[in-house]
Amino acid sequence: MQYDVCIIGAGPGGYVAAIRAAQLGLKVALVEDQRAGGVCLNWGCIPTKYLLKAAASWRDVQKLSNYGITVQEASFDLEKIIQGSRKVSDQLAGGIYSLLKKHKVHVEHGWGRLQKRQAGLFEIHVTGKKDEKEIEKKLQAKNVILATGARPRPLPLQIPEAFVWTSKQAMIPSQLPENLLIIGAGAIGMEFATFYRSFGVSVTVVEMANRILPAEDDEISGLALKAFEARGMTFHLETTVSAVHSNTDTQATLELKHLPSGQVSLWKGDKVLVAIGVVGNVKNLGLDQTSARIEKDQILTSDFGQTHQEGLFAIGDVAGAPWLAHKASHEAIKCVEYIAGLKPHPLDPSSIPGCTYTSPSVASVGLSEAKARSMDLPIKVGRFPFQGNGSALIQGYKEGLIKVIFHEKTGELLGAHMIGEGVTELISTFCVGKSAEATVEVLHETVFPHPTLSEMLHEAVLDADQRVIHF
Amino acid sequence: MQYDVCIIGAGPGGYVAAIRAAQLGLKVALVEDQRAGGVCLNWGCIPTKYLLKAAASWRDVQKLSNYGITVQEASFDLEKIIQGSRKVSDQLAGGIYSLLKKHKVHVEHGWGRLQKRQAGLFEIHVTGKKDEKEIEKKLQAKNVILATGARPRPLPLQIPEAFVWTSKQAMIPSQLPENLLIIGAGAIGMEFATFYRSFGVSVTVVEMANRILPAEDDEISGLALKAFEARGMTFHLETTVSAVHSNTDTQATLELKHLPSGQVSLWKGDKVLVAIGVVGNVKNLGLDQTSARIEKDQILTSDFGQTHQEGLFAIGDVAGAPWLAHKASHEAIKCVEYIAGLKPHPLDPSSIPGCTYTSPSVASVGLSEAKARSMDLPIKVGRFPFQGNGSALIQGYKEGLIKVIFHEKTGELLGAHMIGEGVTELISTFCVGKSAEATVEVLHETVFPHPTLSEMLHEAVLDADQRVIHF
Repeated sequence: MQYDVCIIGAGPGGYVAAIRAAQLGLKVALVEDQRAGGVCLNWGCIPTKYLLKAAASWRDVQKLSNYGITVQEASFDLEKIIQGSRKVSDQLAGGIYSLLKKHKVHVEHGWGRLQKRQAGLFEIHVTGKKDEKEIEKKLQAKNVILATGARPRPLPLQIPEAFVWTSKQAMIPSQLPENLLIIGAGAIGMEFATFYRSFGVSVTVVEMANRILPAEDDEISGLALKAFEARGMTFHLETTVSAVHSNTDTQATLELKHLPSGQVSLWKGDKVLVAIGVVGNVKNLGLDQTSARIEKDQILTSDFGQTHQEGLFAIGDVAGAPWLAHKASHEAIKCVEYIAGLKPHPLDPSSIPGCTYTSPSVASVGLSEAKARSMDLPIKVGRFPFQGNGSALIQGYKEGLIKVIFHEKTGELLGAHMIGEGVTELISTFCVGKSAEATVEVLHETVFPHPTLSEMLHEAVLDADQRVIHF
Repeated sequence: MQYDVCIIGAGPGGYVAAIRAAQLGLKVALVEDQRAGGVCLNWGCIPTKYLLKAAASWRDVQKLSNYGITVQEASFDLEKIIQGSRKVSDQLAGGIYSLLKKHKVHVEHGWGRLQKRQAGLFEIHVTGKKDEKEIEKKLQAKNVILATGARPRPLPLQIPEAFVWTSKQAMIPSQLPENLLIIGAGAIGMEFATFYRSFGVSVTVVEMANRILPAEDDEISGLALKAFEARGMTFHLETTVSAVHSNTDTQATLELKHLPSGQVSLWKGDKVLVAIGVVGNVKNLGLDQTSARIEKDQILTSDFGQTHQEGLFAIGDVAGAPWLAHKASHEAIKCVEYIAGLKPHPLDPSSIPGCTYTSPSVASVGLSEAKARSMDLPIKVGRFPFQGNGSALIQGYKEGLIKVIFHEKTGELLGAHMIGEGVTELISTFCVGKSAEATVEVLHETVFPHPTLSEMLHEAVLDADQRVIHF
């Protein structure tokens, strides 16, 4: 069968590309050997958000007395929580298959492998199983989009299997560990730290960088560290796991090395979660049959996902950082529109927000203060703390900061950085601000409704010009 | 003592005007006979939001089992809930006095009354009590800003006092009524309906218009009605209270008249909340000593609050609808900047959002669909339901809709209308969109983070151009 576009991988990049391609009238095939939705929907963003909602609900139970409510004998059932998270994934995956069907996307279940392009056509060999029988199919396509995603980066150190979790395993624990060591204080590591700590697990976090959430603005990282420590987590910064010292059947002992001083300390516990980033899924796709280039497990692409092979595109995690579903889906749309002969704009990396669904949460878009200063940009910075906001007071959100960075001369919004409950829903306001090129003056004029958390965005903007009202 | 500006009334309009005036180097006095903060902070937005947060917490208790959490013997203590709401008001009012002190605003406690302006100066007579003694002070000011707010509009019908609540009284009940009749299905009425219904009160709502929340888009009103009915509220639309029929010591009987049919029915119950709007506080301010004009209990003003009397300004509720704190504070800033000789832009009424903190919540900014059509604007409408959003599914938010209205030719964002949990924090995204003049194309390009409720804003925008992905 011959298609205009064959997409390999049905994660957020792949299935959005398929739907958009269908909307544009292209004949499209989607090849995937797992369930549609990718890591995000099946083993990432979606199920972890349910777990974090359960954790938030559990924390809320402890706060009910602030609102005159009393309960007795509160308890949680880990198995039911995990089941709930799986059910949400199941439901959304079902939804994706319905959408694909609605848009008449041909879905091929199996592993797709490229053959050499001939006469402007790729052949894709798809191998899979149906009713226990190996089957192989061949598809032909003028264009191929690789959206094969990424997988957890393995730790370059052997820890006995019984003690090690990948993020996937940490999502479906049969019981809570007593002592959990998390290697990597990025978004994934800190979200799991929040989940497990909320349910009483002793959590220790090891991070090679000199701060947690290293992708975030320094000041936000510092506030996050303080907030997480206040919740009883222990942090070792500028530290690596240097050796597995000894272990019993029920306990592992790991040696942690503080890099600047060389000092070592021991951690003993029952589970180690490795969350040190991801590597692109570039293997066994037949890329050796093409002129596409790969560097550090990432397919090199230009503005609209074009690889070095004509007709071959790559989007999402396999095409590099940031490893975010919304980056993948925007790349998907632009790539397909490019293939369809439309004139999309390239995706501006500074327009891609990032969210960490911890407690407090973290969200940002654009340049950090340090980055802006390193670029020698003349900047003005505005800040507003949660303590000055009525809605935050009502909801008992005592920690938090909104920080905005403007170009001092032009008033351009360069970056926005937030920590506090609810900020993952607030950041889109500045995403629109950035894409609409709202200046500091325009944001002064914007009317934010009272009483909301969103008023803090306005106050932070006012603060950049020494006009803040409520602080 | 002579001031550049004397402000009468220390609600959100008045105290923001005072702070902004001080920032601009003006010498400023603020006269108020109640506690600073106005109705909003003391008897409106702020304490009701705490009450609604308590109600939401109580509803959340019933949903804990969705997240694997079990509790026994849940109970609430009305007195503690009311105390909590008062404490939040106390704390924020204290904060305002600190801000006024920090900005060196002279605060005069008492009732301010204008005298005839002479030689470019107003004299304001302030009468108050200090240590049980009547005192009178005189202030002189080049400019006077009236920010005296509004009070509940009384019902033109006598109901025995024991059965009637103003919104203030409904905020501090000594016990829950069994059967509550709410007259007026605007934002205030529906917020109280949500609070009382959440705690099990039987709630009946009477509304003269043919839909609830009549200030909102028709479609949103209809969805709100359906959602509130599903929570067990009873509605009588196009209906007025036509007579007080009879009553015992513990029960009032009211006659409800359906206007189109003339049919009457009886309601029996123990409390009636009157929430049929507000009237401006224009009495006893000495306005007869000025050439300011008053119409329907509202001081007539132009762009920056100028009245028909030179040097006299009016802002906030006393200057007319919409009766919203954020409208008052923006008017305050513009008025003061105008007095200070800056060149502010007039406040665009279509830029003022409105929020109703019910469950589900409602939020909007700009033109409704009906209004846009009545103006013969060529429009395109995009919609996205909560059912298509992963974050909504995770949080158990099954009801809700995001609706956006664009100019079909120019792509201008004309209005945004939302119903669903969390929308009061989402609307600011479109407030910035409107003030930054973001077109539909710009909003297509905006990257919204996944997985959030805010993605629905993007999907609704995509839907306006038949490009929606997840539905």
